[in-house]
Amino acid sequence: MANERHTIDYKSAGVDIDAGNEVVRRIKGLARGTYTPGVLSDLGSFGGLFGLGDRARQDPVLVSSADGVGTKLRLAFMSGIHDTIGADLVNHCVNDILVQGAEPLFFFDYLATGRLDPDVAVKIVEGLARACRENGCALLGGETAEMPGFYKDGEYDVAGFIVGLVEREHLIDGRRIAAGDVLIGLPSSGLHTNGYSLARAIVFDRLKLGIHDRVGELDTTVAEALLATHRSYLPLVRPLLGRGVIKGMAHITGGGITDNLPRVLPDGTEAVVRNRSWTVPPLFQWLQRSGGVPEDDMLRTFNMGIGLIVVVAAEDSDRVLAALSTAGEPSARIVGEIARSTTSPRVRYER
Amino acid sequence: MANERHTIDYKSAGVDIDAGNEVVRRIKGLARGTYTPGVLSDLGSFGGLFGLGDRARQDPVLVSSADGVGTKLRLAFMSGIHDTIGADLVNHCVNDILVQGAEPLFFFDYLATGRLDPDVAVKIVEGLARACRENGCALLGGETAEMPGFYKDGEYDVAGFIVGLVEREHLIDGRRIAAGDVLIGLPSSGLHTNGYSLARAIVFDRLKLGIHDRVGELDTTVAEALLATHRSYLPLVRPLLGRGVIKGMAHITGGGITDNLPRVLPDGTEAVVRNRSWTVPPLFQWLQRSGGVPEDDMLRTFNMGIGLIVVVAAEDSDRVLAALSTAGEPSARIVGEIARSTTSPRVRYER
Repeated sequence: MANERHTIDYKSAGVDIDAGNEVVRRIKGLARGTYTPGVLSDLGSFGGLFGLGDRARQDPVLVSSADGVGTKLRLAFMSGIHDTIGADLVNHCVNDILVQGAEPLFFFDYLATGRLDPDVAVKIVEGLARACRENGCALLGGETAEMPGFYKDGEYDVAGFIVGLVEREHLIDGRRIAAGDVLIGLPSSGLHTNGYSLARAIVFDRLKLGIHDRVGELDTTVAEALLATHRSYLPLVRPLLGRGVIKGMAHITGGGITDNLPRVLPDGTEAVVRNRSWTVPPLFQWLQRSGGVPEDDMLRTFNMGIGLIVVVAAEDSDRVLAALSTAGEPSARIVGEIARSTTSPRVRYER
Repeated sequence: MANERHTIDYKSAGVDIDAGNEVVRRIKGLARGTYTPGVLSDLGSFGGLFGLGDRARQDPVLVSSADGVGTKLRLAFMSGIHDTIGADLVNHCVNDILVQGAEPLFFFDYLATGRLDPDVAVKIVEGLARACRENGCALLGGETAEMPGFYKDGEYDVAGFIVGLVEREHLIDGRRIAAGDVLIGLPSSGLHTNGYSLARAIVFDRLKLGIHDRVGELDTTVAEALLATHRSYLPLVRPLLGRGVIKGMAHITGGGITDNLPRVLPDGTEAVVRNRSWTVPPLFQWLQRSGGVPEDDMLRTFNMGIGLIVVVAAEDSDRVLAALSTAGEPSARIVGEIARSTTSPRVRYER
C-alpha cells in the first residue's frame, strides 16, 4: 500500500525525514492514479490489499516475478533522465508473466538510495505509475529505503515485483509445442533491459562517446538510443490469451534468443531461428561493428530486435499475425520453426 | 520461480557466469525445500506459479508487502554473518501481512551485489529458505543481480516481496476498535530490523566497540545482540485468525509504537500505552544510557521490547493471553488500552 511507504526516520543518524514525507505524499498520489477495481485502498495499512473478486473463477493460478533494471540504471544516472527506468521495470515484469498467459493484477517496487532526492524519487515513480496504468496494473505499494553509505550520491537501485492471474486451463507452458510449429517474432523497442554492461563498454570505453553525443548512424543521441523504454507486449498479446492458440512464449531478456527460447521448449524439440528473416535494427548493428562483437555473442547478449517470440501451430500463424497487426504491430513476422531433436532443447540459427 | 534466477551473463564485461550458475544451482535446491502444495513447480519458467486451489473460497483478498532489511545489513557485512539477514527479511514481511489477518502464500527476493560471492549469496538464501519453511511460505522465486560498481566489495542489498491470502470477512483492519479495548504486547527478539542507524552510531561511533567485542551488561557480543533475528509472530497469532477476536494488530517497525500503533486506530480513538507495564529489555536500556537518547526518541525509533500489539475487547483478553501462552508465548501481556479522543489517533504514554 502506498501509505505503508516510509523512510527510516531518525534524522539524527543522517536520514532526512522531511524529504521522505514529501516523497511519500507525492508518491501516494501517483499510486492512486493506477488503482484498479480490485484495490481495497481504504482497508489497508501495513500490507497492500487486492480483492480477487470475480477474477478468481475455476482454478486461479497466481503468476509472479521479481526483477531489476540492471546496469541500464547507469544510463539514467549519466543522463539525469529518471522517468523511463520505472516503465522499463514494469514492462519487463509484465512480459515475464505474460509469457505464461497471465494478465497483471498489481505491482510493488523497492527503491533504495543513499540519500533520497525527492525529485528523482518522484520521477522514478512517475515512470512506474505511467507503465502500471498503461498495463492496467495497480501500483499497490512499495518501499523507499534511505541507506546512507550504501549507494553513491546520485545513485540508486530499484527492483519490482509483479503478481498476475491466469486460469489454470489457460496457462501457457510450452508443453504442446511440437515439430512444425512456427516462431513469430515481435519487434523490440531497443536493448530493453539487457546487455547494458557490454553496450556501455562499447559506447563509453571503446568509442569514448558522451551520453549526450549524437550518433550519426542512428540519428539519435546515445542517451535516446540506450534509454529507449522496454516495451510491454501485453496490449498486442492480450487479444490472443485464453483462446488456446498460443502454445508457448519466450521473453527475450538476458541471454538473448539463444538462452531464452529453449526455456519453453519440451524435450525432443529444438528451435530453428532464421536470423536473416528480420532486419536487425541499426542500434545492434552499430554496437556489433563498433565493438567487434562476434555474431554468437550478440545473439546471446542482446535481443537483436526481437523482444518476444510466440510459438503457434503453422496453420494458426496467419490469423495470429493478423491479430497482432490489428492490435497494433504489423511488423510481427515468422522467424523460424520448431524441429525434432534428440539433444536438449536449444536454438539452431540458420541463414 | 527459482529457475528464472539468472545473473547477467557476459563475462567480457566483468560478470562471472560460472559463479552465477553455481549459485543458481545451490539456490534452486534451497528454494525447492520450501515448496508448499500450491507451488506448480513443473509448469513455470519465466514467472513463478502458485495455484490458489481450495484456498480461494468466498471472497479471497491478496495481502502483499515489499520490504528491505535497511542498515542492519551493515552488521552482516561487519561480522561476516550472512545467514540471518534472510530470516529477518522474511519474518518482517510475514508480520506485515499478518497484521491484516493474512497467512503467507509465497515470497520473492531481490539480491543485488557488485560482484557475486557464491558462498555469501547461498548463506543469504539459506536464511530466506529457513524462515520461509518455518512460516509455511514458499520461496517461489527471486532475482540475483550482479551489477559491477553499484555496490562496494563485500556489500549487497536484499529486498523481499510477500503475498498472502485472507478471506475478506476475516480481514483485520482496526475498524471495530473502540474505547475500552485492551492492547496486548508480544515480546520482540531484539531490535528486529529498525533503529540500526541510531544503534550503530551509539555502539560504533560513540562507544567505539568492535563487532565481536563482548558487552558485559548484555552477556553477549555486539554481533549477537544486534543481529538477533527479527521474530515471526505467525506461529503465535495463527490460532487466533479467522475467529473475529482480533480487532487490530500493529507490527512495531520503524517509528516504534508511537508511529505504528496509530496506523490501525479509527478516528475518535487513541491508545494509552503504559510503558512501565513491561520491562524494557537490557539491550534497549544499554543503548539509551550509552547514547543519552531521550525516552521519546527511544519510543519512536526502537520497538523497546514489544514487536507486535494485538487489540482485543477487554472481555476477550484472558482467553487471548491464554491462547498466546499455549502457542508458545507466556510473556504476552496487557500494555495499555484504547480511549476516546477528539484528536487524530495517536499514542499517549502513561507510566
